[in-house]
Amino acid sequence: MNKIAVIAGDGIGKETVPEGLRVLDAAARKFSLDLQWDHFDFASCDYYAKHGQMMPDDWKDQIGGHDAIFFGAVGWPDTVPDHVSLWGSLLKFRREFDQYVNLRPCRLMPGIPSPLVGRKPGDIDFYVVRENTEGEYSSVGGRMYEGTDREVVFQQSVFSRAGTDRILKFAFDLAQSRPKKHLTSATKSNGISITMPYWDERVVEMAKNYGDVKVDKFHIDILTAQFVRNPQWFDVVVASNLFGDILSDLGPACTGTIAIAPSANINPERLFPSLFEPVHGSAPDIAGRGLANPIGQIWCGSMMLEHLGHPEAGAAVLTAIEKVLEAGPKNAPFTPDMGGTASTSDLGRAIAEAV
Amino acid sequence: MNKIAVIAGDGIGKETVPEGLRVLDAAARKFSLDLQWDHFDFASCDYYAKHGQMMPDDWKDQIGGHDAIFFGAVGWPDTVPDHVSLWGSLLKFRREFDQYVNLRPCRLMPGIPSPLVGRKPGDIDFYVVRENTEGEYSSVGGRMYEGTDREVVFQQSVFSRAGTDRILKFAFDLAQSRPKKHLTSATKSNGISITMPYWDERVVEMAKNYGDVKVDKFHIDILTAQFVRNPQWFDVVVASNLFGDILSDLGPACTGTIAIAPSANINPERLFPSLFEPVHGSAPDIAGRGLANPIGQIWCGSMMLEHLGHPEAGAAVLTAIEKVLEAGPKNAPFTPDMGGTASTSDLGRAIAEAV
Ligand SMILES: CC(C)[C@H](C(=O)O)[C@@H](O)C(=O)O
Ligand SMILES: CC(C)[C@H](C(=O)O)[C@@H](O)C(=O)O
Repeated sequence: MNKIAVIAGDGIGKETVPEGLRVLDAAARKFSLDLQWDHFDFASCDYYAKHGQMMPDDWKDQIGGHDAIFFGAVGWPDTVPDHVSLWGSLLKFRREFDQYVNLRPCRLMPGIPSPLVGRKPGDIDFYVVRENTEGEYSSVGGRMYEGTDREVVFQQSVFSRAGTDRILKFAFDLAQSRPKKHLTSATKSNGISITMPYWDERVVEMAKNYGDVKVDKFHIDILTAQFVRNPQWFDVVVASNLFGDILSDLGPACTGTIAIAPSANINPERLFPSLFEPVHGSAPDIAGRGLANPIGQIWCGSMMLEHLGHPEAGAAVLTAIEKVLEAGPKNAPFTPDMGGTASTSDLGRAIAEAV
Repeated sequence: MNKIAVIAGDGIGKETVPEGLRVLDAAARKFSLDLQWDHFDFASCDYYAKHGQMMPDDWKDQIGGHDAIFFGAVGWPDTVPDHVSLWGSLLKFRREFDQYVNLRPCRLMPGIPSPLVGRKPGDIDFYVVRENTEGEYSSVGGRMYEGTDREVVFQQSVFSRAGTDRILKFAFDLAQSRPKKHLTSATKSNGISITMPYWDERVVEMAKNYGDVKVDKFHIDILTAQFVRNPQWFDVVVASNLFGDILSDLGPACTGTIAIAPSANINPERLFPSLFEPVHGSAPDIAGRGLANPIGQIWCGSMMLEHLGHPEAGAAVLTAIEKVLEAGPKNAPFTPDMGGTASTSDLGRAIAEAV
């Protein structure tokens, strides 16, 4: 039995999460899995409106014992500023549940046009592995001479050996498990001259344990250029918190899948629940109208099943998504963003049936 | 009269710089300009091999009085590590000559295919304005518990009010001078929670002086995605040192021009010489064989003429490049990288004639 905390959050999260559950229930029936859903209303701006904070004080007790968190989207900038809603929920989960891996697939999908010339499904299929708890996202720093012409603002990046090595280990393991066994490290050691050379050193050190993995590195500037020019080069790309943030938006943009891309925030040791959320946000402009595309949420479900130790069920969900996408807007219920007229739940139902 | 320091540097710089000078001389004849070239052999790995340092101690006296520096490329990693060659030359110029603006055009050119679907010349034409002296490229930081499991490495980002305001002012002025009058700020204030909110504040403050400039901002992750999805949105993009570094490689990658893109390192107050260098490096793999494409170097010449107060001559050089590119590899001497068989100097001569 897997106990899963379900948090729909804000905006279109409330519409896409039920479709994710519908598809996961279908997979559970097919593969005889016992998935138990516990719904929570916190980590949302509605909750904030009622309680003046994003989450109850005992949020860790309430969901810390679950096997995973199935998350919709958070944020409603009209009522709660983003830094309050995000740092009060999503970034708290990442840190306090030590979800130090952020994993995002970049994959050309059938039926989804890529903005890049001449690419077809199969050409692009890689993962970005992002460090998710330290690095450039630190809380150390401040202002001096505030409000004067001499004002100066500092922020410290922090790379610990433990924090660096564990993300590299995860990425090397992942690369080793894939046919190409190819790891690319994102760096900027020619410019960011203290932390990034350290990152490079740890890559060299870790590589010694993985003789069968082909390793290369690119500076982040030219790496973003290569995502556009030669995305077929990549297999597993490992990056610091900030560089990973950038690459895991740019990658799905290159495959045309940014609106449907999933992301996993993982604690590999399973000391805490991992969190699965689509890359898209709460989309206030279309929320509440049944227009949202639920594929990102459903794809998250596929990653979650894999993480929970049900790889076949996870693969079946991904195949179902691809089957429906392949059918095209004439034969399958596509949502408006993909050129169809179907609703969120029409598309969710079609994918559930395909499972 | 303009006194210009010429530094060919390493690798293909030695082949492209003479072609740049050929075209600039043609422009000088046509527009009756008096351009004086002074050649220097330092800021090269050859110089390092002879003297054990990249530049003589009195480099500032030797070139500090010139009106501009026309630069080829630096770096020869087989003999000198990049961080030695770069920090010993290019990054010294940027800092000690206070070239706080790094300016790079992203422009679809005729005859150069873009990797993006369905884009044609005119569709993409914007500038990246990068802060070039502070921000994430700082020398403040270090290691603690070195060599142990508790090792931790710090590096401080530094944003001063003066440093932030002056780059924003340059960018706003540039936006105001262009027909679209549109400025986009690159930020990451939702994640980099100390320095980036400060950057946003200064943008809001500076915008008050430019009522006619339309201002928006994007977080760097989604901004890189929009460079791929909607490059036609942009006019002037202003960014910190690191974000500008990334965007000014990604932008030219999206237009297919990364191999021929120019860049200008500018001290707008003209207290020090500004430096003009192509984005491409020294290209050890093709150096010395007459294969290098000189267009990046020549385009730099166009930017330099503009900076020196000769905008018509600068525009004429850019038009000459476009005319030759438009003719295509059958009718003009294209170098191998663009599908032709011509040499560096064949192409340089053709552009000089077109001026
Ligand atoms: C070589 C490197 C230090 C440099 C930079 O990051 O500034 C380069 O990428 C550039 O953009 O000129
Ligand atoms: C919302 C923001 C803080 C977050 C991040 O930068 O981590 C987002 O961009 C993401 O990638 O999940």
